[in-house]
Amino acid sequence: MGAVDVIIVGAGTAGLGALREVRKRTQRFIIINDGPWGTMCARVGCMPSKALIEAAGEFHRRLVFSELGLSGSDGLRVDLGAVLARVRKVRDAFVNETRELTDDLGERAISGRARLRGPHAVEVGGRVLEAGSIVVATGSRPAVPADWRALSDRLLTTDSLFEQTALPSRLAVVGLGPVGLEMAQALARLGVQVTGFHAGRTIAGLGDGPVNDMALETLRHELEVHLGHEARPTAEGAGLRVTAGSASAVVDRVLVAMGRTPCVEGLGLENLGVPLDEKGLPEVDRATLQVAGLPVFLAGDANAEVPLQHEAADDGHIAGINAVSASTRRFVRRTPLSIVFSDPTLARVGLRFDALDQARVVVGEARFADQGRARIMLRNAGLLRLCANREDGTLVGAELFAPEGEHLAHWLAVAIHRRSTVFDLLRVPFYHPTVEEGLRTALVEAAKQLPNGDGFPLLAMPSE
Amino acid sequence: MGAVDVIIVGAGTAGLGALREVRKRTQRFIIINDGPWGTMCARVGCMPSKALIEAAGEFHRRLVFSELGLSGSDGLRVDLGAVLARVRKVRDAFVNETRELTDDLGERAISGRARLRGPHAVEVGGRVLEAGSIVVATGSRPAVPADWRALSDRLLTTDSLFEQTALPSRLAVVGLGPVGLEMAQALARLGVQVTGFHAGRTIAGLGDGPVNDMALETLRHELEVHLGHEARPTAEGAGLRVTAGSASAVVDRVLVAMGRTPCVEGLGLENLGVPLDEKGLPEVDRATLQVAGLPVFLAGDANAEVPLQHEAADDGHIAGINAVSASTRRFVRRTPLSIVFSDPTLARVGLRFDALDQARVVVGEARFADQGRARIMLRNAGLLRLCANREDGTLVGAELFAPEGEHLAHWLAVAIHRRSTVFDLLRVPFYHPTVEEGLRTALVEAAKQLPNGDGFPLLAMPSE
Repeated sequence: MGAVDVIIVGAGTAGLGALREVRKRTQRFIIINDGPWGTMCARVGCMPSKALIEAAGEFHRRLVFSELGLSGSDGLRVDLGAVLARVRKVRDAFVNETRELTDDLGERAISGRARLRGPHAVEVGGRVLEAGSIVVATGSRPAVPADWRALSDRLLTTDSLFEQTALPSRLAVVGLGPVGLEMAQALARLGVQVTGFHAGRTIAGLGDGPVNDMALETLRHELEVHLGHEARPTAEGAGLRVTAGSASAVVDRVLVAMGRTPCVEGLGLENLGVPLDEKGLPEVDRATLQVAGLPVFLAGDANAEVPLQHEAADDGHIAGINAVSASTRRFVRRTPLSIVFSDPTLARVGLRFDALDQARVVVGEARFADQGRARIMLRNAGLLRLCANREDGTLVGAELFAPEGEHLAHWLAVAIHRRSTVFDLLRVPFYHPTVEEGLRTALVEAAKQLPNGDGFPLLAMPSE
Repeated sequence: MGAVDVIIVGAGTAGLGALREVRKRTQRFIIINDGPWGTMCARVGCMPSKALIEAAGEFHRRLVFSELGLSGSDGLRVDLGAVLARVRKVRDAFVNETRELTDDLGERAISGRARLRGPHAVEVGGRVLEAGSIVVATGSRPAVPADWRALSDRLLTTDSLFEQTALPSRLAVVGLGPVGLEMAQALARLGVQVTGFHAGRTIAGLGDGPVNDMALETLRHELEVHLGHEARPTAEGAGLRVTAGSASAVVDRVLVAMGRTPCVEGLGLENLGVPLDEKGLPEVDRATLQVAGLPVFLAGDANAEVPLQHEAADDGHIAGINAVSASTRRFVRRTPLSIVFSDPTLARVGLRFDALDQARVVVGEARFADQGRARIMLRNAGLLRLCANREDGTLVGAELFAPEGEHLAHWLAVAIHRRSTVFDLLRVPFYHPTVEEGLRTALVEAAKQLPNGDGFPLLAMPSE
């Protein structure tokens, strides 16, 4: 086989994004994948986790049935084996759909572990393939420190969690970032006795004090949470003890959710001849995905930038476009948006509050304890905070822990993307009764702190 | 009592909106209300209906419990008396909150039936009160033609529905506009055998063929629907027979939901000296709420313009501002948004499809049967259609029947309000997996029909 235009290493979300752009421009490409084909998102990430959360959320609602006038909820039971079987069924369908994207590639799709030999050469299965450029999109895997790895079959990660046919009665979740928090709450709702440990003081990547405080206060009604100390495992009978500071819990198994590590060991990045950081990664420009002047592009979780599916997809597209273009194009990235599928939902949009100069912004809040629709739904808990420039009222960021919060976050994302002011956003219709009225409450509060922000928001037309 | 600056007739959503603006500008006002204080929305509209829908929606979800891995749903029962008691409890709380807005007014709040004596005079309780201007916000009541009114205690409207302590086993819902459709589906889900009749061919105010078709096809799995003929009641034993064209049903009671009529009989509008239409209404400018050159403003459902709570509130504010201002200000009204809280949700945003020149627009669609998150949630039914100008890609309108559709509608409203193009909206983040990805699907399809709309959406920065 002669040299191709592009070799894509990795067929996850980023690799498939690159493939889509490459195929539009050349048929001389190769895509190499190590391990099972199908994206991380579909196999062990977004999709199975949302399926587990769906079952947990529905079961949890039985607690309001009596108040709503529905009887018999005492007889509802979780069949954990059936829940997990349905998670796998859903997952398999999505995995098959991502696999279909490479099914027709024939010899251009290679299964095997790739190793870069230089900026134009990749070794796989004993052969060296040459290419004009290389897209590296090898993804990430759960980070598991050695003392946890030593637990062997008492250890779970998201790689193994969805393969279980049963779950123990006592589980520790170590790491309450987005993934750990989602799984801790869902498993607690499904009847597992969950103890959560988190070394930091803010959960799920939150930056803002009040939202973090409200989330912790609410979630502690459902599971035990210990913050601020690194957790350590020690053997205890057939199970293990997890200790963090003065807190400890004896559990049967532990789900380690301490973030993800780029899959770059043995990938040969050192053969590119550029400096690598302590994680073994070269410097990458997020606007191009290019590795310093080389025809090599590092996309998706492998670059350790923003480990979110929609950003990984963009990474792949940008890398794919640049890998087959004569000149490297710089792209404007999307408004930041991250969502944690807890209940209420946690989300962050736009600029981080803790990165803003507090003297130059105003903050508007809405509390969902007293919000009309949230009360009707018996989902009335949560706090939304949004932040606008004091100078001109432009909405710049928001953090929320709110019912239906994933949707409020999307509304905020389009508002911020369109560079809207709080004054103009108050001219948007808010239907009654919806949780979106909480957005209006927060906008009104922000506007009141700004000059002329206290009036009826609709614009008067110029008089004739 | 001498002349006041403003008399507000009606203390519903529009009247209270007017009151809020008036109080900021003068303390010389009177508000008159006939019948119970508290808004229609809180007493017999938005709030109790949403409470009923919440119970119905939760009970309906038992049908997916087994698929999710939850057992025991066969034992769930509706206690209709308890459901309706909870509806009233919720309603009472909201009614009390709207009443608090007038509690401190003392003699400036008058209970009684008002009659206009001219553009500066209102008669109530035998007294004639004089004012610089008058805001008329008397609201609306269910429209019930004479042959239905004759059913007496077998007739229900939304005025009486939420007062019931039990419901019959067989119910006809006559009129499948927004209110009729919401109640028909909710009551069917709560175990009432519902037959729906609708004189038109499109339900819930829809204008678009495919969305109406999809909604009908889906909803007919839950209740019987007869379209296209006016329904008529005839006595039959202890119940009644409802007949429409060749369709008929024998039922115990009937919920008449044939729209609402402005409450203007006996109001004395004829004393204003301006022409009245066949409904007895004068011409009103929606931008000012003013009645042709008079110091009289007609706000909310009473003007029969857009019978939606958020528009009635705006009406009230505009009328209140103009009633106490030296000059009449014209206000830019909000982007149209209407939502029907069926499941999936029905909604319309922006311009009506049937009002658009089809040659000048492109339509993008998303079907939720195959949408990722909707499948995970087992809510995968529905259709979203959006419409953009062919000339420049500006999003101008959307119709949808979609899971979580009330939130998609709000996203579309802010996008349309901000005069966004489909190209730019594809640069907004869509988190994975969410139903908002359905918006992207439809945007992609619309963009593809436009010049240069087929590429990766993110903007490349100008090269240096």
